[in-house]
Amino acid sequence: MPSPGTPTLERGFIVPVGGAEKKKADRVILERFVRLCGGEEARLVVIPTASELDDTGDRYATLFEELYAEAVEVLPIQKRQDAYREDCLATLEEATGIFLTGGNQLRLSTILGGTPVAQAIRHLNADGVHVGGTSAGAAIMPEHMIAGGPSGATPRADGVILAPGLGLTNRLIVDQHFRQRDRLGRLLTAVSFNPFVIGVGLDEDTAIFLGPEGVFEVVGSGAVTVVDPTDLDFSSMDSARPGDAVSLIGMKLHVLAAGARYDIEHRKAMAPERVQD
Amino acid sequence: MPSPGTPTLERGFIVPVGGAEKKKADRVILERFVRLCGGEEARLVVIPTASELDDTGDRYATLFEELYAEAVEVLPIQKRQDAYREDCLATLEEATGIFLTGGNQLRLSTILGGTPVAQAIRHLNADGVHVGGTSAGAAIMPEHMIAGGPSGATPRADGVILAPGLGLTNRLIVDQHFRQRDRLGRLLTAVSFNPFVIGVGLDEDTAIFLGPEGVFEVVGSGAVTVVDPTDLDFSSMDSARPGDAVSLIGMKLHVLAAGARYDIEHRKAMAPERVQD
Repeated sequence: MPSPGTPTLERGFIVPVGGAEKKKADRVILERFVRLCGGEEARLVVIPTASELDDTGDRYATLFEELYAEAVEVLPIQKRQDAYREDCLATLEEATGIFLTGGNQLRLSTILGGTPVAQAIRHLNADGVHVGGTSAGAAIMPEHMIAGGPSGATPRADGVILAPGLGLTNRLIVDQHFRQRDRLGRLLTAVSFNPFVIGVGLDEDTAIFLGPEGVFEVVGSGAVTVVDPTDLDFSSMDSARPGDAVSLIGMKLHVLAAGARYDIEHRKAMAPERVQD
Repeated sequence: MPSPGTPTLERGFIVPVGGAEKKKADRVILERFVRLCGGEEARLVVIPTASELDDTGDRYATLFEELYAEAVEVLPIQKRQDAYREDCLATLEEATGIFLTGGNQLRLSTILGGTPVAQAIRHLNADGVHVGGTSAGAAIMPEHMIAGGPSGATPRADGVILAPGLGLTNRLIVDQHFRQRDRLGRLLTAVSFNPFVIGVGLDEDTAIFLGPEGVFEVVGSGAVTVVDPTDLDFSSMDSARPGDAVSLIGMKLHVLAAGARYDIEHRKAMAPERVQD
């Protein structure tokens, strides 16, 4: 459940990225994230816990510094005990933006889940701090996290592994590396388990910037696939056996490229505004 | 996410039952549910959607009438379109209690998910209407629903299938037919995916009555197994491959029989009060 937050403060943005965002030229996603968090006054905290590589946090710190953020800290959280450290919590309290790196989303959820650091991220986001994440760091943001599942376009009864995520939003489920790893089937499976939630498939180098009023804009070089089950007439998910393909009748699908927007509350996609000649 | 509800109204109880509750003699669970919903003034609505048998709804209607409920209605919801019917919504609005029968929880979530009936159950529960459910009807109540998984006491990387549930509470995950079907492993797996949530395993003929202040009492002839990950020091879930047994160090476990209580907010189990001689 998203934290209710302080009523007088506006919620922060949620910025899931589909992985492999550009880090040298054309790094529009990371640039915009820094700008959102205050530009030259941005104080960013990087959480590299999803990754088992030693230098993931420092790589992002260098990147954000190149983009003129005022300060960047990397939280050294590699096991559950680290996520109780007072110094980590104090660092988070100063942030204008938090960024979760890629790696393994189950590593992230099993280390952060239920700890003071996870609670702090939820409360801070509710009170206006922006939270971005790429790949595993994108998957973990919603209440329901896609933890795994096979490739392919066909939904199957056992086509996805779900686990509880960070709970920054319960309005959508996020999948990443979407076209590169052919994941439409597992996103459809996840949405059809309980057709109340919007499915969002993020291509690599593509992000959504989801604002407090429930509207997101697409940023980056790929597309975002939205799966909306509002008008779903029929699903055979309840009677499908493991491995069976699942019938879904009446699912709505949008493919949105840079500049397009989507209103989650009203389930309405909006084309990019045309630039006048 | 649980519905916020009307601030001036107290939330209704949530009453998940582990299945196979007694229906002739010693039917303490159903008796207590009717009493909670107003006794001889109870107006109950039965939702038999999880079941594919024709008479499941009527069986419960007869039972609740035998227990002196004032009125019992069975909602004829067998496909998604039924869950948009105005007459079903009007019937729900009059209820003091709603009961979800057993069957297949994925049938329940795929038919009700995102429909006006699902939304009505959430809002009514938030505004004081009590919601009970047995077996599949118990599993679907929380935000995270156990949809399947193998038997056995050992948690395994692929030891549980989760799907989004009705979202009446996000404080616990419920499993049912717990000792009868040897389901400790899958409950431990579900909790260890993201150790913020309490796991509750309900034996057959055993229920919890979870009140608006976050305390539940155990009712019935079996026991309730509570799995609390608050002090979890280590989990190998993030590095386990499919089929691997998972190490969990520091999980807390309670077994609670009739009369024992549990405070979810403070994660504290309380023994039954002794009857004085």
